[in-house]
Amino acid sequence: MFELLQCRKSLMIIFLALKFFFMFISLSEARVHNYTWDITYQYKSQDCYKKLAITINGMTPGPVISATEGDTIIVNVVNKLFMENVAIHWHGIRQIGTPWMDGTDGVSQCATIPGDTFTYQFVVDKAGTHMYHSHYGVQKESGLYWLIKVTVPAGKSDPFKYDDDDHSIVLTDWYHSSSYEEATKLTSVPFVWIGEPQSLLVNGRGKYDCGNLTTNVCDLTNPECVPYSLTVVPGKTYRLRIASLTSLSALSFQIEGHNLTVVEADGQYVEPFVIKKPDSSRNYWMSTNVVGRKPQTPPGLAIFNYNPNHFNKIPPTIPPPGPAWNDTKSRINQSLAIKAHRVFIQSPPSTSDKVILLLNTQNTIQGRTRWSLNNVSHTLPHTPYLIAQRKNWTDVFDQTPPPESYDFQNYDIYNVPGNTNSTSSTSFYRLEFNSTVDVILQNSNTMNVNNSETHPWHLHGHDFWVLGYGDGKFNMSSDVKWYNLVDPIMKNTVPLHPYGWTALRFRADNPGIWLFHCHIEAHFLMGMLVLFESGSEMVGEPPQ
Amino acid sequence: MFELLQCRKSLMIIFLALKFFFMFISLSEARVHNYTWDITYQYKSQDCYKKLAITINGMTPGPVISATEGDTIIVNVVNKLFMENVAIHWHGIRQIGTPWMDGTDGVSQCATIPGDTFTYQFVVDKAGTHMYHSHYGVQKESGLYWLIKVTVPAGKSDPFKYDDDDHSIVLTDWYHSSSYEEATKLTSVPFVWIGEPQSLLVNGRGKYDCGNLTTNVCDLTNPECVPYSLTVVPGKTYRLRIASLTSLSALSFQIEGHNLTVVEADGQYVEPFVIKKPDSSRNYWMSTNVVGRKPQTPPGLAIFNYNPNHFNKIPPTIPPPGPAWNDTKSRINQSLAIKAHRVFIQSPPSTSDKVILLLNTQNTIQGRTRWSLNNVSHTLPHTPYLIAQRKNWTDVFDQTPPPESYDFQNYDIYNVPGNTNSTSSTSFYRLEFNSTVDVILQNSNTMNVNNSETHPWHLHGHDFWVLGYGDGKFNMSSDVKWYNLVDPIMKNTVPLHPYGWTALRFRADNPGIWLFHCHIEAHFLMGMLVLFESGSEMVGEPPQ
Repeated sequence: MFELLQCRKSLMIIFLALKFFFMFISLSEARVHNYTWDITYQYKSQDCYKKLAITINGMTPGPVISATEGDTIIVNVVNKLFMENVAIHWHGIRQIGTPWMDGTDGVSQCATIPGDTFTYQFVVDKAGTHMYHSHYGVQKESGLYWLIKVTVPAGKSDPFKYDDDDHSIVLTDWYHSSSYEEATKLTSVPFVWIGEPQSLLVNGRGKYDCGNLTTNVCDLTNPECVPYSLTVVPGKTYRLRIASLTSLSALSFQIEGHNLTVVEADGQYVEPFVIKKPDSSRNYWMSTNVVGRKPQTPPGLAIFNYNPNHFNKIPPTIPPPGPAWNDTKSRINQSLAIKAHRVFIQSPPSTSDKVILLLNTQNTIQGRTRWSLNNVSHTLPHTPYLIAQRKNWTDVFDQTPPPESYDFQNYDIYNVPGNTNSTSSTSFYRLEFNSTVDVILQNSNTMNVNNSETHPWHLHGHDFWVLGYGDGKFNMSSDVKWYNLVDPIMKNTVPLHPYGWTALRFRADNPGIWLFHCHIEAHFLMGMLVLFESGSEMVGEPPQ
Repeated sequence: MFELLQCRKSLMIIFLALKFFFMFISLSEARVHNYTWDITYQYKSQDCYKKLAITINGMTPGPVISATEGDTIIVNVVNKLFMENVAIHWHGIRQIGTPWMDGTDGVSQCATIPGDTFTYQFVVDKAGTHMYHSHYGVQKESGLYWLIKVTVPAGKSDPFKYDDDDHSIVLTDWYHSSSYEEATKLTSVPFVWIGEPQSLLVNGRGKYDCGNLTTNVCDLTNPECVPYSLTVVPGKTYRLRIASLTSLSALSFQIEGHNLTVVEADGQYVEPFVIKKPDSSRNYWMSTNVVGRKPQTPPGLAIFNYNPNHFNKIPPTIPPPGPAWNDTKSRINQSLAIKAHRVFIQSPPSTSDKVILLLNTQNTIQGRTRWSLNNVSHTLPHTPYLIAQRKNWTDVFDQTPPPESYDFQNYDIYNVPGNTNSTSSTSFYRLEFNSTVDVILQNSNTMNVNNSETHPWHLHGHDFWVLGYGDGKFNMSSDVKWYNLVDPIMKNTVPLHPYGWTALRFRADNPGIWLFHCHIEAHFLMGMLVLFESGSEMVGEPPQ
């Protein structure tokens, strides 16, 4: 069994131990991949329930972008959403020197209006399993997302072996209400929670309990919701690229009766570690379960099919249960278990130039429920930061940077805050170019008694070293001693566990202004984000 | 009983005959009315069924704009629709010299993106009952609309008397699906018809049959759907401003047991004519019914309450039936009955400089169902025409004007067209500035056997003289003899009856590029529009 956090993605898994690998200098020529994507609304029945989804060339999930490290991707995004704008973020692509292409509305661009086309052009700088998804309002949850698969260039090879082509498994959660309904609830006074998703999908397929709904609303025989089935041959070793693109849920993932070995995360090789499964006899479910929140969404199921059985034959067993949803300790341990592959260690700087301590709290601003960092709930300006900064428009955003710490002597992270008032701001942190920065994420109790949530934090434009995770309140003098400075993995997304802390280090070496935020759609909309500016005066001209 | 077409609006009705009136030159000073409107999505239960609606400062229907002829209206429209743009048209306001303020996406402006504010500023040039509504995609049907009430200036008076303040009655139809669902269906291949609306609303109130729906979805006790009640005092004369803002339905309107006298239409006084009702004893329904299409939507009901009865006491009678839905002859006769008030006649030019004959047909383009004029189905360019024209960007729209006539010798308007292929275009008609133009709208059979629909045509930027209506195919040599050149009313919206024709004349005296289109949302989206350019080189700078 293996647990996946919402954005702990790009895990390549093999069933057999590693043997050896080779590494060559690549002399092959980089290629250009050109796509044109019509973005339209279409009725889809991914979990048998018919609802309006946002599609790419008629499809949700969208197409897989397949390329080799160093290649250039060009995507002409044609907005045909009638009245709705669009922006697409290339999650895991660092956009080195191309901050305009990051696809974040309010930061790198204005969202593209209906009838218009925005051309994204960027280099996929690092092999691995990356993702793309809408980065505009809560549009992602309408289904505008999928994978970017970047292979190693000729002359290089992966530090593990497998027999077959690799396969992708993407996990998503699925709401039946529209993104406008979700956004309306989340911003209403009094606050209305959107609730848990109706379904978990494996490769865009799920099964909703249609109950008494008529078949034109919910139809279990709709071919669009036939469970995904992965056909394999006994005895072979497979590489699976597993990604989670959920809007809310943290997930586990398991294949009944099989051990999985984690070999890569966020485009970096890791020391392989086996995720154990109790032995099972034959025929198999792949399943995914909600963890970190009390599950109210049924598991997502797919079929692990051994050739020559029929690919959609239902396994005779009951799907295995997922891990205990509230076993935070195990999840912290799993987080700690991920280390850089010994041959691919990129050592972090031994010290940092600046430390930013970010306490996340749940708050109220003018009756609206919000999330804050150091008591500041962030909103994006109407004019994208990059443009405002370039044009020196000082009235677009708050010029005073937000606080770099909180009152860690006195703040009680285990209780509901006494005063939930907060302020909103469009300010950002200014980092000296090429400086090394530590960020310590500190979790706390929400406005509900005995509740602290998991937050997957994602940094744009950079990878960071993951120096440590811990329970309780981070202690600046004692916890830093436990930092892993030897073989920390570099990632772009990391979990912050309930009542815990997570420590990161990164070098501010990519000129621009970059988001760092909780990847849960609702939390992002509610202000759980900060921005890092560094060397933005070096950024070139915006695209046409 | 009185029939209202979809956009035959602004009818002031009094119960007693006119006596006399006075007219003075106004010397009063024009005022400026300043509004700020937050446009947001909100859950509303206008017909007891809860759905997401677009609101102005939390309200749908929106606020009434009340002003006096000559006043200036400033509306700061603040878009808070998350991911959706907005544009608002001021229907009935000619925007003389202010074509940038017409609020039509793709013609006068780009729709305003979320987070942005567009400030509309214009003069209400003519007393009467006008309207405002979204003019972007099919956004109007989400509830973004209401009234502009313009009174005569001091020193002038209306040519009729009434005892009380005037009252407004606005009729709308209401779908339970979202505008994105409607637009998706209408543009899908194969075509999916959106069906008839679920409810008719009187002043934003209706009653849907909730059936087995749970009360959190549909609740007949919700105060938002208490029927509208108009309280009156026996024996007094009332002025009612009646407007229809439906997205599909043509409607009748009647008050049980009362005669109504039409005194004004589209901001022009008409020769008063009485709409007869069979006598009724006491206590009264106001009701509205679908006409022109086979009704599948229940009547909209409101209460006509005599003081001192309780205002929401249900009348003891069964609501009166509406007129026969398919009695086209009566509706043509009613159209013909409307003439300019004898004291307010604005004589039309006796001849025209150009005649444009517009045959509307239902067509197919690349599998998509469309509407065409002279076999051209129009689409709006991404860059607004006014900007493209000003900048002399010749690649924004087709430069060759569309055809000014059709093959009227051979075209059979009573049968399904033999060849339904059509072409789409972004071209427009170029009219010599200050020239007089006749437009003859010619109806025909749709792609369904024995079917021709009613189309309410609306001209932006101008009023036109209504010269005539007729059954069957317009005959250029004989029908022009019947033109009313003596006392035609000036309007901005006019019905085209099934299998009939409607003839208009207007002077192209307002520099700009102006829409002329069927006001049914679905038909507009499907290409039932043309554009008239005239003197656009005189148009001033666009607003900031």
